[in-house]
Formats: sequence, structure tokens, C-alpha cells
Amino acid sequence: MEKLEKYVSVKDEDHFYHQGAVELLIFNFLLILTILTIWLFKNHRFRFLHETGGAMLYGLVMGLIIRYVTKSPDVESGTVYECEKLKSGPSTLLINITNQVYEYQYKREISHHNVHGHQGNAMLQKMTFDPSIFFNILLPPIIFHAGYSLKKRHFFRNLGSILTYAFLGTAISCIVIGLIMYGFVKAMVHIGQLKQWEFHFTDCLFFGSLMSATDPVTVLAIFHELNVDTDLYTLLFGESVLNDAVAIVLTHSISIYSPKENPNAFDAAAFFQSVGNFLGIFAGSFAMGSSYAVVTALISFMHLTKFTKLCEFPMLETGLFFLLSWSAFLSAEAAGLTGIVAVLFCGVTQAHYTYNNLSPDSKMRTKQLCKFMNFLAENVIFCYMGLALFTFQNHIFNPLFIFGALVAVFVARASNIYPLSFLLNLGRKQKIPRTFQHMMMFSGLRGAIAFALAIRDTGSQPKQMMFTTALLIVFFTVWVFGGGTTPMLTWLQIRVGVDPDEDLKARAASQSAPNLDKNTTKAESAWLFRIWYGFDHKYLKPLLTHTGPPLTSTLPEWCNPVARILTSPSAYGDPLKDGDTVCIIQNDELTENSELSAHVPVPAQDSTGSTQATGKEDIQEGDLGLGGYKLQLQHTAGQPQKNSLA
Amino acid sequence: MEKLEKYVSVKDEDHFYHQGAVELLIFNFLLILTILTIWLFKNHRFRFLHETGGAMLYGLVMGLIIRYVTKSPDVESGTVYECEKLKSGPSTLLINITNQVYEYQYKREISHHNVHGHQGNAMLQKMTFDPSIFFNILLPPIIFHAGYSLKKRHFFRNLGSILTYAFLGTAISCIVIGLIMYGFVKAMVHIGQLKQWEFHFTDCLFFGSLMSATDPVTVLAIFHELNVDTDLYTLLFGESVLNDAVAIVLTHSISIYSPKENPNAFDAAAFFQSVGNFLGIFAGSFAMGSSYAVVTALISFMHLTKFTKLCEFPMLETGLFFLLSWSAFLSAEAAGLTGIVAVLFCGVTQAHYTYNNLSPDSKMRTKQLCKFMNFLAENVIFCYMGLALFTFQNHIFNPLFIFGALVAVFVARASNIYPLSFLLNLGRKQKIPRTFQHMMMFSGLRGAIAFALAIRDTGSQPKQMMFTTALLIVFFTVWVFGGGTTPMLTWLQIRVGVDPDEDLKARAASQSAPNLDKNTTKAESAWLFRIWYGFDHKYLKPLLTHTGPPLTSTLPEWCNPVARILTSPSAYGDPLKDGDTVCIIQNDELTENSELSAHVPVPAQDSTGSTQATGKEDIQEGDLGLGGYKLQLQHTAGQPQKNSLA
Repeated sequence: MEKLEKYVSVKDEDHFYHQGAVELLIFNFLLILTILTIWLFKNHRFRFLHETGGAMLYGLVMGLIIRYVTKSPDVESGTVYECEKLKSGPSTLLINITNQVYEYQYKREISHHNVHGHQGNAMLQKMTFDPSIFFNILLPPIIFHAGYSLKKRHFFRNLGSILTYAFLGTAISCIVIGLIMYGFVKAMVHIGQLKQWEFHFTDCLFFGSLMSATDPVTVLAIFHELNVDTDLYTLLFGESVLNDAVAIVLTHSISIYSPKENPNAFDAAAFFQSVGNFLGIFAGSFAMGSSYAVVTALISFMHLTKFTKLCEFPMLETGLFFLLSWSAFLSAEAAGLTGIVAVLFCGVTQAHYTYNNLSPDSKMRTKQLCKFMNFLAENVIFCYMGLALFTFQNHIFNPLFIFGALVAVFVARASNIYPLSFLLNLGRKQKIPRTFQHMMMFSGLRGAIAFALAIRDTGSQPKQMMFTTALLIVFFTVWVFGGGTTPMLTWLQIRVGVDPDEDLKARAASQSAPNLDKNTTKAESAWLFRIWYGFDHKYLKPLLTHTGPPLTSTLPEWCNPVARILTSPSAYGDPLKDGDTVCIIQNDELTENSELSAHVPVPAQDSTGSTQATGKEDIQEGDLGLGGYKLQLQHTAGQPQKNSLA
Repeated sequence: MEKLEKYVSVKDEDHFYHQGAVELLIFNFLLILTILTIWLFKNHRFRFLHETGGAMLYGLVMGLIIRYVTKSPDVESGTVYECEKLKSGPSTLLINITNQVYEYQYKREISHHNVHGHQGNAMLQKMTFDPSIFFNILLPPIIFHAGYSLKKRHFFRNLGSILTYAFLGTAISCIVIGLIMYGFVKAMVHIGQLKQWEFHFTDCLFFGSLMSATDPVTVLAIFHELNVDTDLYTLLFGESVLNDAVAIVLTHSISIYSPKENPNAFDAAAFFQSVGNFLGIFAGSFAMGSSYAVVTALISFMHLTKFTKLCEFPMLETGLFFLLSWSAFLSAEAAGLTGIVAVLFCGVTQAHYTYNNLSPDSKMRTKQLCKFMNFLAENVIFCYMGLALFTFQNHIFNPLFIFGALVAVFVARASNIYPLSFLLNLGRKQKIPRTFQHMMMFSGLRGAIAFALAIRDTGSQPKQMMFTTALLIVFFTVWVFGGGTTPMLTWLQIRVGVDPDEDLKARAASQSAPNLDKNTTKAESAWLFRIWYGFDHKYLKPLLTHTGPPLTSTLPEWCNPVARILTSPSAYGDPLKDGDTVCIIQNDELTENSELSAHVPVPAQDSTGSTQATGKEDIQEGDLGLGGYKLQLQHTAGQPQKNSLA
């Protein structure tokens, strides 16, 4: 008895002093290694293995070491104990073992087939951290960064196409993958690898929706480095950002789709309920995200008579900015909505309104911090994916399922990109060339989001098989397609080394001429968006930021008393010209562009746009992809895609 | 059966979608509230409740709400289940409940008396997060910040006194608290509140060591804001920073002190082993921390011919800087040393060497990021302390013990400050005036470290009583003494509104005169430190940074080939003058000061010091304590403490 106590206390001591430090150290070590490798790669202009691929590789090696070097000291844990008294699993269990009460916390449900494979290696267990850390801590900075650094001008120019790819394309992809997988599952049942009741059609659709989240981090980083054609960049960036949001909401909707009787039969009511859920969740998340951003804008804009403005306390300002943005995510999750969608639109809105109210220091600081967090989170996730292949203990490798998934992913990507591009080209003035379509097809990598969705639920056998398959597809696409991006660009002869300023200058030149060439902007940004732009510029921007015309001049006269209170004093120096909406849009776009690509001076005639725009905040814009070197690709001057310039 | 399954799956669904979001949201909400309050306080120049006190108050209210508004749905968890088959508690337990296997994870050992009080409120349980998060994630940035922002000049000027207070003072405090508490424990046993065997003398000493960690965050923030006398500031800052390190190592050493037979009897061998442990752990942690910093300095300094320097990739540079510093902490913890000590000295060394190698952007970025993380971590900890009073479920409030602890803490602080100050004044040229001593006595708040040490182990009844008591003492000291700082300064007539430049100017003036007034620096920085300074300036700085004279001129001639390789090319423009060590020290100090207090131009004769020093990085120095307002205190010009100037 005494001896046991001693043993327990020594164990406690041990527990006391290294809790979690070793695991964190391993991650730190992997990250340091990744950073050093990136440095090396940048120096040798090596572009066949991207940093994310490298991070994954290191994770893989480390996982291998942990798995086969550490032992399983916990022999007890393979045994299942009976407890007749319990009716269901409580969240906390108190157990009396040799006269000492121990507290145990509920972790998860285990399928019977896993019990024996359950090795109970404590080290492995510690390394497979809680999926909620992914969702609540690692993903938000990545998605927020995507929203906050969105190049609005190009985005809105291609909005129609982006929305089509993101909504319609993801739905197509989800259904195609679901159908193909259902075929493979049927085949597996036929040859006896699977029992019929384990895998419903809804499970296949679930898999389809999670595999539809593309993650072109690698491709976009290379595009950024090579200055690939802006339209292609924007199409891919916009598609992938929105597509993540759509895929997540879709996964959520499918997982709560519960037909009343036979899960294989089609239940119209349940289906429409799912569609309703999808729309409701998307709209709700959007509203949640933007309202948090509007609150941030209002707080940072506030100038009560007795109050020092918030921007005089940069620490508080930055703190509030990030905490409120994160709260947008968490509130949405807590309310049963989708945090990713909320934080994405929160980022977009913050960039649109709050950014203008920040002090110049804070502008720079928020951008840098956002980028830094994104950089760290991304590398942690990719390291972790590498680790998970060996440390996750309930993998189910089914070759047929994996092969089926690979086929399904490509067929789905093809039936998303090509038909939709064809349809879009019917309506677009600037067609999406074939080469762009091939490149988009090629850039359908799967990454963090697919992984995060798959790891969220690994309780049952089908879910474990999905997780393993998703992980392998991520590896395959990141290494093969990520590495193949540069050769593919050369092969498709896509324009690289495009000077983003060139585009701007051409645009400025066309604008300074008295006859505005309305073709480009007007054709693409539909009437709905022109109305929105006008409304935003006349009412929302003056209300929420220091830019734009004073409300007194935009609101009807009887609103003057209210308008005077709501308008920033600094806005009065800046009377509204009687320009038409298109002009406002184009000016806005110009200003935005000068905000985003630093070294371009704001054109002199930009009188209605924001005068606060400084080029300073973007010093770090290219710091991950710098070096200033251009790839030795043939500049194909007279190509069809050249017409992306006005 | 079917019904149960349905129930479980619904529960899972729920689990699936809000994992952790609600708890994080609560913390976010508390932080946002705290930030808004700080803003309000800053506007109203309200200084009787510091932000930390405010954060604690909000936490308290939130804890109250969570405790009494949320219900305990988990009725099962009060019951203890028997398990005869198990011999000891495994880290993972598989339990078969109604034909479904659940996995449970070991959380902790529970004393028998707690079992019935164990309410099993899931919400409360989630809010009391893992102590390892404190140690591994929240504390490192705070301690690193303290090291990285150390004002070396003033620190070294008062080094002897600081070391005396930190080492000897903390030991005195620990023993005094231990003895007094032992008396109270004896009394409690006498009146039957406690059983003899529950509380050994080593437990009392353990409590003494953890309660000896002072945390003057609040006081120092106010000092900073009011520009209190620099020497007082430095004494307190230096003492508290080192004292934390000492208290932590002391707690560690005492907890592994295990006399062979009677735990109450004095065992000389075990005692000396503890002392040896203390010294070994301290030295080991110091070495670990500084070696990580040296590695960082070397990497950021590296300029291989084919390599672009790291500072051209700011994101990588910043990432590496923080990851390596954090690794210093984690490695020390993993190796059984003390991470806090390691990260503290890592911070000091980073500031001394690596800082000089960073690009100007990175200098600013690391400072800002470090400050920002410190700000967030501090507020999270104080919010959490407030929460813990109501959410922690195993409090043991013992009025006698709490009263005893309060008495002990004050007696211990008094027997630390007054006798040591008396002894120090015998040796010091500039005496520590009585008013300073009173102020130091008054500033002995307990905070994050004491709390973190106490929460690390709450398994047994004595440890729970200690935790509750420590928490209450933190509340009491932060609110009462933190709030009383400003009145106390007025009452003691301590000089405020001191211009740090004034000190510098006087010093520069005295130096430009041909006869160097060696009294101040020489008297205080003992011969050992002069030797160290000379060595550092001649060999280490040129080896690790771009500053200082080239090694070719400082090393003997036969070392020239090696020296040439090791010296940065930029150092050659800067030949070593034949100045004496004191001059080097003073120049170094001047440069440091100009680095640290921004707006002072570097004196022209500073030729041997670092020429890289820019004032830019310190733009944010005062941003938490700004506003530029001075307190309306009487400036008592002809006071004894005025002689702190040369």
C-alpha cells in the first residue's frame, strides 16, 4: 500500500513538471525546421516543394519517429472494463481504484473494432490534439487573413464568376463525389469489404462536401511569387476562399440532414429542410461576421467629446480589433452557425470600414500581425497533418475507397470547372481562356479545411475511413500538384511577371480621358453591385469611417441634424462631386489598389475617394514571396489572355 | 435501445458543433470588457483600480454568474464507481456502458472528502482549464517581455541590491512564511480543525515559497505612468523579476525535498540535496535560456556568401525569434529545469545580442509583438483568477489559515525589505532611503506566479487549502495595495514625473568633462561586472552582433585568421579606441539608454558603442501608460533621494 502511494506520488511529480511541454516542444521544433527550410528554399529558388509540403514532410518523419521509437507503457489501456451501473457515458467519471478515487474525463466513443487496435501509447495520444483547437484557434487566423487581405477591386470585377464557381461549383463537386463514392461503396459491399448498413448515401455526400473544400495555399503562394496574371489569381483566390465557406456550411447541413425513415431513400421534406438550413446558416453567419466588424468600426470611429480616441492607445486598439474579430467566429460557432463564414466576412468588412479608422501604426500592425498569425497557423496545420498520418491511432486504409476518392475528386473538379467556365464565357466579355481553365482544374488541391472537417468526427468506422482517405488525398495533391504548379504554368504558357501597376496605369489613363471606357467595370459588376457601391459610398462609408463625403450632403435635407451628428468632422473638407456611380466605383477601386500595392501614388484626380490612404501599411506585402526574382518563362506577348487589360 | 442511440448521437452532434467555442467566447468577452474599461479609466485618469484589478473583478462577476445560473445536468458524476480489476489509474480507460465502449482520460486524483462536494457541473469544469496552459502558454510571454524590456543600464547599476533582495530576500520570506504558517497549522491541529498528519513542515515551506513570488505588475504600471524615480523603479522591477525565478525554483526544490524517514524531522543530507538542486536547476535553466538566445543571435547574424540574410525575410526572422525563445522555455521544462528562469534570461540575452542583428522593422515588430502578447496574457490570467474563485470546485476556505497567511505574508515582506536594506545601505554609496523601503514593503503584491504555482497541484486537501488562500491573498493585495499605490506615493512624498533624459544628460555632461566622475558606476558595478563588460564588449558582441570593435583588433595577433572569419565586415569601419573599461561601460550604457528611451540623440562622442542604434523601435514604449498627464504631487526638490543623480 505504502509502496503504491509512493509510486503514484512519483508519477504525479513527473506529471507536475513536464505537462505538455514535450509535445509543444516537438511542434516548435518542427516549425523551426520548417522556417529554416523555407529560408534555404528561398535562397536556392527552389520551387518544387512548397513550404507547406515541407512542413508536411517534416511532420511525417517526426510522426514516424514518435510512433516507432516511443513505447506503449500503458498496458492496461487495451482492456475494456465493464460497468453495469452506468446507463450512459457521463462527462466525468469517478472511479475507486485500490481505495483511491480518480477522476476521468469523457473523451470519445470508440467503435468495437477499434478496441483491440487501441494501443494506448500515451505519447501518440498526446500528439493527436483536440480537433476543437483546429477549429477554434488555428483556422480563424487563416480565414480572417484571407478576408482581410482580399484585393477587393479584382474580386468585384470577377464577382459573378467567383460566386458561380464557389456556390454552384461546390455543389456540383459535392454531388459528383458523393455519387462516385456511392458507386465505389456499392462495389465494396459487393466484394464483401464493407457491410451495407455502415455506409449510407448521406455519408457519401458528407464525404463529398468535405472533399470539396479546395485549399490552394501552395498554388496561390507561387502565383504571388511569380506575379501570375491578376485575373487568374483573383478567380482562384476568390473561388477557394468562398468555396471553403460553402463546403463547411454544406458539410454542416448534410450532417444534420436526417430523413425520417430509410436513410437511403430520398426524403423531399428533409432535403428542402437541408437546403433551408444551408441558406439560413450561410446568411446568419454572414450577418454575424459583418455585424462584429461594424461594431469594431463604430468603436474605433467613436469620438465622444470627453474621450480620447481609441487610436491613441494602439495596444488597446489592436487588442480590440483582434478580439472582436475572433469573437465573430466564436459567437457564430456558439450559436450553431458557421464560424469560418462569419470570420471571413468579418475580415472583409474590417478591411473595408475599420481599416480606414485605424491609426497608421495600427494599420501596419494589424496587417503584420494578421499575416504572422496566418503564417504560423498554416505551418502548424501542415506539420500536424504530416504527424497525423502516423500518430492518429484509428486509421482505416481501404485501397479501393482511396482510389475511388482520388478518381472522384478529379472528375468532380473537372465537372465543376469546365462546364461552368463554358457557361460563364457565354456571359463574360473577357472570356476565361482554356489555359486558365486547365490551371484552375490543376489547382484543386485539398488542404487544411478538408482535413479539419474530417478530423472533427472520427468516432465511427466510416468516418475513420473518410479521415484516412482525406489525409492521403491532401498529401497527394499538395505534393504532386503543389510541386507541379511551376512546370504547369510554363507548359500552359500562362503570363507571369505581370506588373500589377501596369494594369492600374492603363486604367488611370483610360479614366483621365473624357470619354469613360465603361466596358470593363460596368459589364462585370452587375447593377446590383453598382447600387450597393453607391449606397456604401454615400451612406455606410461616411457613417462608419472618416472617408467619403459628409452625410449632410448625401442624405436628404430634412435629415441634416442627424447627419451632422453622425458625420466625422474630417469629412467636411471633402465635398461630394456630382460624379456618376461608375466614376465612384472606379475611383474607389483606384484608391483601394493604391492602398494594396504600396508604391503607386494615388492619382491626383482622386478627390472623392479616401484621402487617408497611405502606402505605408503594405511594406510587408511581399515579404513571404520576395527575392525579386522572376521565373525564366517565355513571355508570350500576343496571347488571348492579354485582353484582361482594358 | 434505439432511443438511447438516438440520444447519444444527438449529444454528439451538439458536441461536434460548439466544442470549446462558448468557453473561449466567455474569455474573449471578458477581455473585450477589460479593454473597454481600461480605455474608460485612461480617459478619466482613474488610478484607484488598475486594469489587472478590473480584469479580476469582471472575472469574479462572470464566475458568479456561471456558478449560479448554469445548472448541474450531470447527475451521475457525484457517484463513485468501483473497479476491482484495476490496480492503479491508467492514463486512458475504456469502459463498456450498455454495449458501447467509451474512452475516458485520466484527469486527477481526488481526495475522499471532495467526492461528495464534487458537483460535476460541466460548464464549471470546462471553465477551469488545464494549469499546463498557464505554464506553457500564458506565462512565457509575460516573463520574456520582462527580460526583453529590461533597462540594462539601471539594472546593472543596482545589481548588487537586486540580487540580494531576490535571492536572500526570497529565501528569508519563504522561511518566515513557512515558520508562521507552521505555528498556525499547529494551532489549527490544537483546536481540531486539522489532522496532524495532513500538514508537514515541508508543506508550510512549500506554501512559503509559492507565496514569496511577488508580482508588482500593477505597481510598476503605475510607476511607469507617473515616471517615478528610476532607481526605485529599477529596484522593484529587478527584484520582482528575479524573485519570481527564485521562488519558482525554490518551490520546485522544496517539492522534491524528500527526507528519508520522518517528514517533520530535519534531514541534513536531504536539505543539502535541496540546496544543490536549487543551485543546479537555477544554473541549468540560466544556461539553457542564454544558449537558445545565442543560437538565435548566431542565426540572425549569419551571412554565408550564397545566402540572403535572414533579416530580408521579416516573417521568417520574427517567427524564428519567438519560436526559439519559446523553445528555451519548453526545453527547460522538458529537461526538468525551470522554464521561467530560462525564458527570462533568454529574453535578457536576446535584447543584448540578437536585437542588434535584427532589421529595423523586426526590432520594432518584435518589441510590439512581445508587448502585445504580454498585455493579452496578463489580462487573461487576471480574468481567470477572478473566474477561479467561483468556478474552481474544490475550494477549502479556512479562516484561520487565511488570516495566518495574511499575517505571514506581511511579516515576511517586512523581514525581507527592512533588514536587507539596512545591510545594503552599509555598502551602498547612494543609500536606499526610508521612503523607498516603505514603498517596496507596500509593493509586495502577489499575482500570477503565486497563483500559477498554487494551481499546479490541487490534488490533496492541504494543497487545495493553499490554493484557496493564495487566491484570496492575490485578490486582497491587488485590490488594496494596487489601488493604494498612488495615495501611498503622495503620502511618502516620493519624487514623480522624473524625466529619464535628465539623468542621462547629467551623465553625459559629467562624461564630456576630462576628469571622469567614476563614483557612480564604478562603485556599484563591482569588479566582476567590469571584467564581464569588457569581455562582452571586446569578444562576445563582435562575435554575435554587428556592433563593437572587430575581433581582429581585440584578439591577440596570432588569432587573426580566425578573427577575420568571425567578424562582421561592418565592424571594420569602427576601430577600437584605447579607452578604459569604465569608459566602455559608460558608453555602452549611454547607447543602451538612447536605444531604450527613444527621443534622445546618441551623443556624438559615442564611437565605440553600437552605431546601429535607432530610436525608432521604441515608439510604442509608453503606449499603455500614456496620455502625457502628470499627477499633481508636490515636487519635493531638496529630498535625500535626489542624490540618485551623479
